[in-house]
Amino acid sequence: MRLADYAPAPSPRRVRIFLAEKGLEIETVQVDLSCGEEFAEPFVSLNPRCVVPLLELDDGSCIGEAAVICRYLEARHPEPPLHGTTPEARARIEMWDRVIEDDGLRAVAETVRNRSPAFEGRALTGPVAYPQLPELAERGRQRTRQFLDDLDARLAESPFVAGNEYSVADITAFVCIGFARWAKVKPEPRHTHLVRWYDALSERPSAKA
Amino acid sequence: MRLADYAPAPSPRRVRIFLAEKGLEIETVQVDLSCGEEFAEPFVSLNPRCVVPLLELDDGSCIGEAAVICRYLEARHPEPPLHGTTPEARARIEMWDRVIEDDGLRAVAETVRNRSPAFEGRALTGPVAYPQLPELAERGRQRTRQFLDDLDARLAESPFVAGNEYSVADITAFVCIGFARWAKVKPEPRHTHLVRWYDALSERPSAKA
Repeated sequence: MRLADYAPAPSPRRVRIFLAEKGLEIETVQVDLSCGEEFAEPFVSLNPRCVVPLLELDDGSCIGEAAVICRYLEARHPEPPLHGTTPEARARIEMWDRVIEDDGLRAVAETVRNRSPAFEGRALTGPVAYPQLPELAERGRQRTRQFLDDLDARLAESPFVAGNEYSVADITAFVCIGFARWAKVKPEPRHTHLVRWYDALSERPSAKA
Repeated sequence: MRLADYAPAPSPRRVRIFLAEKGLEIETVQVDLSCGEEFAEPFVSLNPRCVVPLLELDDGSCIGEAAVICRYLEARHPEPPLHGTTPEARARIEMWDRVIEDDGLRAVAETVRNRSPAFEGRALTGPVAYPQLPELAERGRQRTRQFLDDLDARLAESPFVAGNEYSVADITAFVCIGFARWAKVKPEPRHTHLVRWYDALSERPSAKA
């Protein structure tokens, strides 16, 4: 099993933190997105979608998408559980994980990819070159701010994102807050619940992954 | 168990087809999105994200997100399997399901919601009013066309979206092709593999769900 990774990017970080929480160490290989290695061989044949993370299994087949890789790792290594232990808990956690992805990660990506000169012609991941839309960068920043408000409100009623236990949804949200700095958006002092939660997660050894 | 549904919308249709393939019948309640019932009581208290589908469990808790609802139903009613039967098959199917969502459903939604007068001030689902971006509608149509080409290429090498067996990823893709008509994009005669697959799926009794 081998993980295609790129240290500075948010999506593979989700998998790295997940692995650290599971106490798993697997071989990783860096795909340098800063010089387009995702569009070149040998990576493009492994993943024609040209994105990391990608988990290469021992039989040569590949699993893409951070959330799917984490679910696969959970199935293979159930302890400690990060997706809940009943179908109901699992559904609640996976629902929150998607909410964080949709309202958080996608909003930040929309901002960064439609504004930064580094992403010119790469407003979306993948092999097709889509032009940047400045209006979308602006909407993305607005959505990112909304996300922080919503996450703070959620953490006012719940110690962790999906309930009383730390889960994969906390990992996704934690990575998202770090990623939001790329869009120059960060929690403000009024986000007291979010700050309490973020500080606590920053103390976990997995935060360095 | 009760499903909040809206017959014309694509996301709840994914769940309806899934239920039909499982041979399950559950109580459904229509939330009329055409007159804003998703923003009003009693629905908004059940789902502050103001989207359907939503699965209300007997204990009153709710599961949102079509893909999460389908996984929950699979856990509770494993036969016939629509998510694979091994962790590896499951990961492959869920990866394809996400690819279809990201490249297909989101592209069509981007087109429709940023163009149609019916979605003015509702370019994104949820309680926050985001203005339409005409450039995004145009990009969405371009992406939808790309999606049809990519799906045709995939179905040239595989009888079903995720491999040799019909799965939840086929349901998502099938719903997406129907939804694409809203964006005035449909398969062309050159999409021979896509057309073969779509015609076969249209014959399944679940297609009427």
